[in-house]
Amino acid sequence: KLRFDPREHQHLRYNPLRDSWVLVSAHRMKRPWKGQVEKPPEENIPRHDPNNPLCPLSTRANGEVNPEYDSTFLFDNDFPALQPDAPDPGSNYHPLFQAKAARGICKVMCFHPWSDITLPLMQPGEIRKVIDKWAELIEELGSTYPWVQIFENRGAMMGCSNPHPHCQIWASSFLPNEPALAERCQREYLRKHGEAMLLRYARMEAQAQERVVVENEHWLVVVPYWATWPFQTLLLPRRHVLRFPDLTSQERDSLASIMKRLLTKYDNLFEVSFPYSMGWHGAPTGTHLEEDMNHWQLHAHYYPPLLRSATVRKFMVGYEMLAQEQRDLTPEQAAERLRELSEEHYRSRGA
Amino acid sequence: KLRFDPREHQHLRYNPLRDSWVLVSAHRMKRPWKGQVEKPPEENIPRHDPNNPLCPLSTRANGEVNPEYDSTFLFDNDFPALQPDAPDPGSNYHPLFQAKAARGICKVMCFHPWSDITLPLMQPGEIRKVIDKWAELIEELGSTYPWVQIFENRGAMMGCSNPHPHCQIWASSFLPNEPALAERCQREYLRKHGEAMLLRYARMEAQAQERVVVENEHWLVVVPYWATWPFQTLLLPRRHVLRFPDLTSQERDSLASIMKRLLTKYDNLFEVSFPYSMGWHGAPTGTHLEEDMNHWQLHAHYYPPLLRSATVRKFMVGYEMLAQEQRDLTPEQAAERLRELSEEHYRSRGA
Ligand SMILES: O=P(O)(O)O[C@H]1O[C@H](CO)[C@@H](O)[C@H](O)[C@H]1O
Ligand SMILES: O=P(O)(O)O[C@H]1O[C@H](CO)[C@@H](O)[C@H](O)[C@H]1O
Repeated sequence: KLRFDPREHQHLRYNPLRDSWVLVSAHRMKRPWKGQVEKPPEENIPRHDPNNPLCPLSTRANGEVNPEYDSTFLFDNDFPALQPDAPDPGSNYHPLFQAKAARGICKVMCFHPWSDITLPLMQPGEIRKVIDKWAELIEELGSTYPWVQIFENRGAMMGCSNPHPHCQIWASSFLPNEPALAERCQREYLRKHGEAMLLRYARMEAQAQERVVVENEHWLVVVPYWATWPFQTLLLPRRHVLRFPDLTSQERDSLASIMKRLLTKYDNLFEVSFPYSMGWHGAPTGTHLEEDMNHWQLHAHYYPPLLRSATVRKFMVGYEMLAQEQRDLTPEQAAERLRELSEEHYRSRGA
Repeated sequence: KLRFDPREHQHLRYNPLRDSWVLVSAHRMKRPWKGQVEKPPEENIPRHDPNNPLCPLSTRANGEVNPEYDSTFLFDNDFPALQPDAPDPGSNYHPLFQAKAARGICKVMCFHPWSDITLPLMQPGEIRKVIDKWAELIEELGSTYPWVQIFENRGAMMGCSNPHPHCQIWASSFLPNEPALAERCQREYLRKHGEAMLLRYARMEAQAQERVVVENEHWLVVVPYWATWPFQTLLLPRRHVLRFPDLTSQERDSLASIMKRLLTKYDNLFEVSFPYSMGWHGAPTGTHLEEDMNHWQLHAHYYPPLLRSATVRKFMVGYEMLAQEQRDLTPEQAAERLRELSEEHYRSRGA
C-alpha cells in the first residue's frame, strides 16, 4: 500500500479558526501555467508626487491640504464605506430579506512621507511609530466600536489604488463575519480544551519548527497548518495578549523587527515588492471590553496571492468560490522556501 | 430624521444560504478609480489552433489525441487536484492539526469545437447538449461521490488558462465547505419555516420583480438580495428540483434559452466577453441519494468580478478577507442595469 506523502497526495486540512477545510493538492505545482500573467509592480515610483493625495502637502479629494508630515499621517477616508450616521434600514419584513444598520468610520494612515518606500525598507524605529499609532487607534475607536479592523492592501494586484505606503482602519458598529467566526471558534476551543487556541498553537509550532518562518523572543511567524494562500502566514505573540494596545514597549520593538524580517523575506521570494492583504485580529472591543475574552489571542494574517513568480498568482475562483479552497503546495514547503531566504532586502544589497 | 435610502446609506444584508452578512455601501461608487486596470479579454481568438490542447485533433499533455468532436467533448483533467486513489493521511494527532483523506476525479468538458465561441453565442440546441452532458455527469459521478461540482471559470481574470469554451467537473469523496454550508442553512430553514428556502425565495422575487433580471416559464434569474459581487446572479427553477438530472426535457430547453439570455446581457453590459465563475449546487449525491433532501433546491451561482467597465473590477481584498464582504452598488441597481440591456449580443449586431 502506498505511503502517504503530503507533497504527492491530496488531502484536507482543518482550519480551527474558521471551522472549515482546505484541499491541499501539492502535485498540482507540476502543471504548466498558460493563464493570465500579472504586470509586475512598478519599481520606479517617485519619492514625492504633488498629484498623489497621500503625499505631504498634497490636496485631497475634499479640498484639505496634507501637513508636511515626517512620520505617520492619519486622515478620514474621503470615500468611506462606513459613515457614523447612516439611518437604520428599519425592521425586516421577512427572514429572507433581512437588513441591519451599519455605522462606523474609515481612516487611512500613511506609514511614511516617501512614496517609494515600503515597510520592509523602513527603519525599525519608523515601523515602531506605525505600531504605536495602531495601538492608539484601537484604543480610541475601540472605546465605542465593537470592531476595529486594521488592514493593508499592498500592491495593485490587491486592489490598492495608491502606491504610497499606507493602511486603512475601518471601525464598525457590528462584529463582521470573519471576526465573528474567529470569536466563536476560539471561545469553543477554550471551553473544550481549557486553553486559548492560538496560545497552544504557537507553542506547538515553536516546538515543531517545521512551519516556522521567523521568530524572536516575543513573536512567531508560521505558515499555518491550514494556510489557503500559497505563502500565507500567521503572526503570533508568544505571550497571551488579548488586544493590540496591551503590547508592551519591548514587544512593540520586537514586532517592528519581526515584521521587517518577514516582509523582507516576502520581497526576496520573487525579487518583487510582494503584494498581500494583511490585517490584525484581537479580542472585540466596545462593550466587549467588560467581558471575559480570554479565549482570544491577538494575531495578524498575511494573505499574499503570488504562487510561482512575480507575475503568476493563485486564483481563488470556480472551485474555490463554489466548493472549497484549494492550494498547490504544502504549507511546509512554503515555510521552508521562506525560511531559506535572506533577511537582507534585495533592493538594499550592493546599495 | 434622515429617511433610509439603500443607495445612499450603508447597511448590512443577510445571506441565508451562507449564514453571513454583506456590507452594502452604494455611495462608494462615487469614488474615482486610480487602481489596477485589467487587460480587456482578447477578442481575436482563432477558431482552430492546433497548439491548443482543447481543440479537436490536438494532442494533450498526456500524449492523447482529441477526436474530431463536433459538439461537447469530455476528458480527464491532465493536472487533477483530486485523484481517485490518494492514500489516507492517517489519524490526527491533535485537534489543531487535523487532516482527512480526499479522493475524487477532475474532468474537463469542452462546450463546442470552436475556440472563438462562448455560450451566449452558441445556438440553444448546442447549449442543450451541454446541459444534457451536465445531467449525465451528475448522474454518473453522483452515483458514488457525495458531491459533484460543475463550474466554469470564464476569462483570464478568473484564472482560466485556456480561451476555448469549457467547464470543469470535480467530484469528491467529501462534501466541500460551501455545499456543506448550503446544506446546513437550507435544512434549518425547512425545519423552521416548513418550506424549501429557495422555492419560497424564488416565489417572492418573482412577485416583487425588483431584482429579477430575466425569467421564463421554468426559470428565474435574480441579483440576490444578499449579492456580494457587483453583478452576481442566482439562477433558480420555479419548480422544486433537487438535482440537475431531475430536469425534464422542456426544462432543459428552457434553461438553454435563459442561460443564453442572461449571458448575452452580461456580455452587453460592458461590451466585452464578461468574465465570471459559475457553478451548480444541487442536493448532495452518493449515499445522500437515499436520504430526505427536500430542503434543497437546485440553483446556479454566477460570480462576475467586473464593477465599472471592461477593465475595472471589484477587489475582494483587505476588509473583505479579514472582516466582511462589501459591495459598491445595491443589488436592485445591478438588477435594473442588467434588465435594461438588450438580449441581442453586441457581437452579432449588424452581422
Ligand atoms: O484548473 P485551471 O482552470 O487551470 O485552474 C483554475 O481553476 C481552478 C479551480 O477553480 C483554480 O484552483 C486555479 O487556481 C485556477 O487557475
Ligand atoms: O479603499 P480602497 O483601497 O480604494 O479599496 C480597496 O480596498 C477595499 C477594502 O478592502 C475594497 O473594498 C476595494 O474593493 C479595494 O479596491
